[in-house]
Amino acid sequence: MTLKKTRKENYPEWYQCVVSEADMAENSSSPGCMVIKPWGYGIWERIRDVFDAQIKSTDHENCYFPMFIPLSFFQKEAEHVDGFAKEMAVVTHSRLSMQDGKLTPDSKLDEPLIVRPTSEAIIADSFSKWVKSYRDLPILVNQWANVVRWEMRPRLFLRTREFLWQEGHTAHSTSKEAEEETSRMLEAYRDLCENTLAMPVLTGRKPEHEKFPGAVDTYCVEAMMQDGKALQAGTSHFLGQNFAKSANISFVNKQNQQEFAYTTSWGVSTRLIGGVIMTHADDEGMVVPPKIAPYQIVIVPVIKNSADEDAVMEYINQIRQSLSCKTAFGEKIRIKLDKRDKPSVDKFWEWTRKGAPIILEIGKRDADSNNVMLKTRIKLGTPEGKQILSLSEFEAGISQKIENIQQEMLNKAKNRLLGNIKTDITTPEAFREYFAQSNEWIEDNQQGKVAFVRGKWCNDPASEEILKSMKITIRCIPFDQSGTNGICLLTGKPATMDVIYARCY
Amino acid sequence: MTLKKTRKENYPEWYQCVVSEADMAENSSSPGCMVIKPWGYGIWERIRDVFDAQIKSTDHENCYFPMFIPLSFFQKEAEHVDGFAKEMAVVTHSRLSMQDGKLTPDSKLDEPLIVRPTSEAIIADSFSKWVKSYRDLPILVNQWANVVRWEMRPRLFLRTREFLWQEGHTAHSTSKEAEEETSRMLEAYRDLCENTLAMPVLTGRKPEHEKFPGAVDTYCVEAMMQDGKALQAGTSHFLGQNFAKSANISFVNKQNQQEFAYTTSWGVSTRLIGGVIMTHADDEGMVVPPKIAPYQIVIVPVIKNSADEDAVMEYINQIRQSLSCKTAFGEKIRIKLDKRDKPSVDKFWEWTRKGAPIILEIGKRDADSNNVMLKTRIKLGTPEGKQILSLSEFEAGISQKIENIQQEMLNKAKNRLLGNIKTDITTPEAFREYFAQSNEWIEDNQQGKVAFVRGKWCNDPASEEILKSMKITIRCIPFDQSGTNGICLLTGKPATMDVIYARCY
Repeated sequence: MTLKKTRKENYPEWYQCVVSEADMAENSSSPGCMVIKPWGYGIWERIRDVFDAQIKSTDHENCYFPMFIPLSFFQKEAEHVDGFAKEMAVVTHSRLSMQDGKLTPDSKLDEPLIVRPTSEAIIADSFSKWVKSYRDLPILVNQWANVVRWEMRPRLFLRTREFLWQEGHTAHSTSKEAEEETSRMLEAYRDLCENTLAMPVLTGRKPEHEKFPGAVDTYCVEAMMQDGKALQAGTSHFLGQNFAKSANISFVNKQNQQEFAYTTSWGVSTRLIGGVIMTHADDEGMVVPPKIAPYQIVIVPVIKNSADEDAVMEYINQIRQSLSCKTAFGEKIRIKLDKRDKPSVDKFWEWTRKGAPIILEIGKRDADSNNVMLKTRIKLGTPEGKQILSLSEFEAGISQKIENIQQEMLNKAKNRLLGNIKTDITTPEAFREYFAQSNEWIEDNQQGKVAFVRGKWCNDPASEEILKSMKITIRCIPFDQSGTNGICLLTGKPATMDVIYARCY
Repeated sequence: MTLKKTRKENYPEWYQCVVSEADMAENSSSPGCMVIKPWGYGIWERIRDVFDAQIKSTDHENCYFPMFIPLSFFQKEAEHVDGFAKEMAVVTHSRLSMQDGKLTPDSKLDEPLIVRPTSEAIIADSFSKWVKSYRDLPILVNQWANVVRWEMRPRLFLRTREFLWQEGHTAHSTSKEAEEETSRMLEAYRDLCENTLAMPVLTGRKPEHEKFPGAVDTYCVEAMMQDGKALQAGTSHFLGQNFAKSANISFVNKQNQQEFAYTTSWGVSTRLIGGVIMTHADDEGMVVPPKIAPYQIVIVPVIKNSADEDAVMEYINQIRQSLSCKTAFGEKIRIKLDKRDKPSVDKFWEWTRKGAPIILEIGKRDADSNNVMLKTRIKLGTPEGKQILSLSEFEAGISQKIENIQQEMLNKAKNRLLGNIKTDITTPEAFREYFAQSNEWIEDNQQGKVAFVRGKWCNDPASEEILKSMKITIRCIPFDQSGTNGICLLTGKPATMDVIYARCY
């Protein structure tokens, strides 16, 4: 029972099918905005909880800053950019009233307000009030919030006008400390992607033209989707003194001199869920890594005739009892008993589409024989996908089984990433030939037609036009560099560095 | 070291002092919006976690709906209300661009968007797509979100243009089920206020003129602040079929007939923090109930000369060790070691102002004698406020001590509430005389000049004008009623019910 579209048939349509059949999110009547439904939001809650603990364990504190930013906060930035124009939601009125039978915006604001696309400006303004001396530094804060960017071609999770994210903002007394913070959080993102989402990433620095406006350096984690395209999964910015200067975050340093602070910012968003889908989902639907699955085990009662109901439910209670003190990854196993009034086969497919890691189907025969029918989502359709275990075997092995699923998912994604970075392209001709092909689904443990190229670049502005015309991007400049030998794969000029080239989301 | 203003001197100014000295929140450069700082946000996180568990344990699921609501969603409502005018943030443009050197809203939207003041309309729209049969009901969802109401006189936590809240929205197949849900959530709010915030409340129904627009019935929890004014702490609405009809949430019932669903909604917000402040804070600053305190114990090292530092820190580690497996209210005790480079007396006053329930001051003498100097915030300035305990006494008693603080705070607030509901006013003259006095701070276990009156009402629209002119409100219609005897305290007409009268925030 594959989805309406498979990955091979039509990758973008397959993606929409997964989101919709897993009931994770949907388009809403509010243009370009999504409704995140319980299964999708449950995954986000898990990601949030894991990363929130990580943020707090590194001494960051959560805060909340206003989502409305006065227009004047953007004026300075705009003056420095030729033809500044940004897609942002602008609040211009503060009342709605009836005029000639028509509801109309009323009470025009003196100064329009922007709904935050990101909060550097408004947070720097607060920092400037909080910081007086080096003793007030560092400031390490984070917020979980909604942000708005007026996307013209919205796609669920990947690009919607409103989305949820966390944004960390810090201020330090030295450049070195701020740079260390930027690297620390980049590493935290790498760890989150790899060890929680089972989504391996490359890390590196963005080239000049891909940097966050106002950043001295932007670092990123880049994942490879199943069609070989890149997804930017998170960014960590070293902002130097740029925002400190424009917002006047200045302090008296240990030498009793006035100095501007050094700031950073870093964020990941609900986009990660899009990345998880395109890393793990298959032609049957979603596959959720156990660490972020709202439920790791779903129990589906199979009651063929109502006389069996009591016995089956009693046995299921026994199974739940046996699971009650079991853990996976050091936390209680999350279990759902699906008692809805629906055929069990429908429930099985629903939870398969949602990608619950393990489904237990428990009927009268299992109750009589003290067995457990265990189905493993990542092995769906294979002989190991369906096991009959004695209750004691089940009990003894379940924690390890859940942890193994996470590991197997990571391994599979790692093989895809590592096996699809082409490193032997050395001329613009070969490069052009490679990217003349279009992206398509990469089968497990196979090499796809097109994915990432690790190759040379000249760092010349002229290369940007070539990138645009080829519809490819430089994802990052890896930290490990092989030197300045060779020629740029875009311009043919002498190269200055290695970069990762790819098409992207 | 009392605050700049005491409760007696100037209650509203005292409130501002508490918020600012406890460093919980501040006004921002975004007009009418607040920055919630780590200590304030930490309290909100605790409230959220407690209530989120409660919501989930009653089968509700978290979702996220768009914050932008198309203007047309309000058109129907507006047509039914004479002189409809609502203070709401209206988004009219989706771009910002430079025009003649001035940053200007650009790219006007075809239809303006409203930043949600509450989400009934947009959520009902989603429900209408989700519900087809009685089998799809009930739908029980909740979201934690920001909302905007264009307040003209903002006050931190109590009334800001943007605030954080949870809003639950449910749809049911019968009126009875929806009414039960409304009551269940009202009870959940009562429990939250009383048993988590130590803020006792009265529960009841709102009179017609105080109902949420579109609700059949609005229920509420009402707390009494230390100045005898009421604070509406939460509301639970039975919406009947009103929203179902306008958004077309209809379903095929068991009798195979098309029917409209019955919906409810309920919410509490960061306003609760304002309530907690005005219930518990004193002239020295904030007092946080242990259940919602980000830290229940703060350890302040007292190092008089640097040679002692190692010994003191080692002893503090021993204390932390002894606390590491201790619980209060079934959860690990939350501890902060304040290692900042500041005089210990300054730290003590900072944490006192913030209202940390317990402060341990640990110096060389304590390390040498294996003692713990324990200061209890609610007993500040009294002999019991400062105890020297042996480490073993401390260890044995700490869990109970934390739980007792919570209980004592609740008892004190309960005495204030129950001791200040006047029930013996039976004539409009006596009522007017009573409310001719202005509200002022009510000392512990004392009767204040003005607080709540439980008395008769005629339920006549004419009484609304009298309420307005006297600047008092009907807080709620209690569930336990004494009958229709007596005369209305506003109009002198024959009474139909008992109500609670009070001034309010």
